[in-house]
Amino acid sequence: MQPQITSSSNERIKHARRVKEGRDPELIFLEGLRLAEEAVRSGLIVDAAFVASGREDARLHALLQSLTGRPVFWTQPEVLEGLSATIQCQGLVLIARRPQFDLSRFFEKKEGLYLALDRLQDPGNMGTLLRTAEAAGASGVIALSGCVDLFSPKVLRSAMGSAFRLPVLTAVAAADLPSLCESHGLHLAAAAGGGTCEYTAHDWCQPSVLLLGNEGNGVSSALLGKCHSRLSIPMAHGVESLNVAAAGAVMLFEAARQRRLRALA
Amino acid sequence: MQPQITSSSNERIKHARRVKEGRDPELIFLEGLRLAEEAVRSGLIVDAAFVASGREDARLHALLQSLTGRPVFWTQPEVLEGLSATIQCQGLVLIARRPQFDLSRFFEKKEGLYLALDRLQDPGNMGTLLRTAEAAGASGVIALSGCVDLFSPKVLRSAMGSAFRLPVLTAVAAADLPSLCESHGLHLAAAAGGGTCEYTAHDWCQPSVLLLGNEGNGVSSALLGKCHSRLSIPMAHGVESLNVAAAGAVMLFEAARQRRLRALA
Repeated sequence: MQPQITSSSNERIKHARRVKEGRDPELIFLEGLRLAEEAVRSGLIVDAAFVASGREDARLHALLQSLTGRPVFWTQPEVLEGLSATIQCQGLVLIARRPQFDLSRFFEKKEGLYLALDRLQDPGNMGTLLRTAEAAGASGVIALSGCVDLFSPKVLRSAMGSAFRLPVLTAVAAADLPSLCESHGLHLAAAAGGGTCEYTAHDWCQPSVLLLGNEGNGVSSALLGKCHSRLSIPMAHGVESLNVAAAGAVMLFEAARQRRLRALA
Repeated sequence: MQPQITSSSNERIKHARRVKEGRDPELIFLEGLRLAEEAVRSGLIVDAAFVASGREDARLHALLQSLTGRPVFWTQPEVLEGLSATIQCQGLVLIARRPQFDLSRFFEKKEGLYLALDRLQDPGNMGTLLRTAEAAGASGVIALSGCVDLFSPKVLRSAMGSAFRLPVLTAVAAADLPSLCESHGLHLAAAAGGGTCEYTAHDWCQPSVLLLGNEGNGVSSALLGKCHSRLSIPMAHGVESLNVAAAGAVMLFEAARQRRLRALA
């Protein structure tokens, strides 16, 4: 019989909990078979796997085979449930190395389209924006200092694997964004309530960074003052604003539409 | 001194809790000053207000004045917090009549653009879609049977008042949607993964219903078979799907873009 972890005070479990709470800067916590498959497929380095004892199915078996050489800890289902960040962890938790992207390669894409985020707080919004940005063909995401952790369990759940595949830069100081854009020839366009340019009139075919701001307060005024343009989305009378993930989706796919049109021209 | 409610087992509080849990089909539960202001501005009929004792500020005072003739119950802050559905109820809970929309007037808008939802489950997605639909100029929302309640506290929070302003039809049987479209001259277009038409190639200037499906499973195949068109959003390789609220935002604002262009032509 396989040895198994039977106690929540086991040191491995306690460490995994610290990772879940974001208290290990090198590691990330993810759960569920589908997200684990995405992580492995994306080449993440897995430090450890915790699997509910008694779980045995073909997909799980295939996943564990792909982790050959990595430590797998069979764990009493109750202990794993206690560790889980969701109602259903589906009997599987992975601890993996936090993905690192190389700044020198981040901006290498010609005609890049980047998404930058200023103090975005809601994990669901962050995850949805990562997923949307990847779908719209964005080259990468820049999370300025003060954003929710891109690799927290809730963000990973909403991002559906996009957080593993999309190049991301994190903890960039807001004050550095304009010069970063300058030196890589990127037009910096902020979504802003009172924006002077309709987002559909903007030329999205140029190499661009779309900057979205905090849920309650938008992009900070200091940063807004340094953007090349301020874009607005025309809205029906009576509506103050869009949810930030919805606004991002609208603009990113307008960029994708313009770029498809140009490719056909 | 004002009499106040001091116990969670007070009958009024117990009834408010039942409303919060969706167990009174006639009434809805909403909290926080901003949402309460939106509700009053939109003409909702307020049955009762619960206000934390000791709260007194100009905005709250103005709101209470607008509720003249409606019963206001001053409530011990702890009791109100216990009733709240959020971490911060901001000392104010309203019980209001559920908005009712007249089917005969729902479709009266010429050149209407409607959003229909098939078994949408997530309250955050539902609220975001209501807010987005109103912003994009939609004429109304049709929630087919099996959707999350459009007036549940979590939906109201994400919808930011749009649920009070936008005409909505609820609990429409999925099987009735195609004939409803037929009889009102509406083109029924479903968002569907394997859709045959790119959403940007679709003519959104015609009177239309955009149909979005369940988060995991999309639009039911029975209903999909009866739609006039199936629309897809071109996505980067490797991405399976968009979050449904993001997909809705992209399509609704493509409709708004086309309609603005036509108005200018």
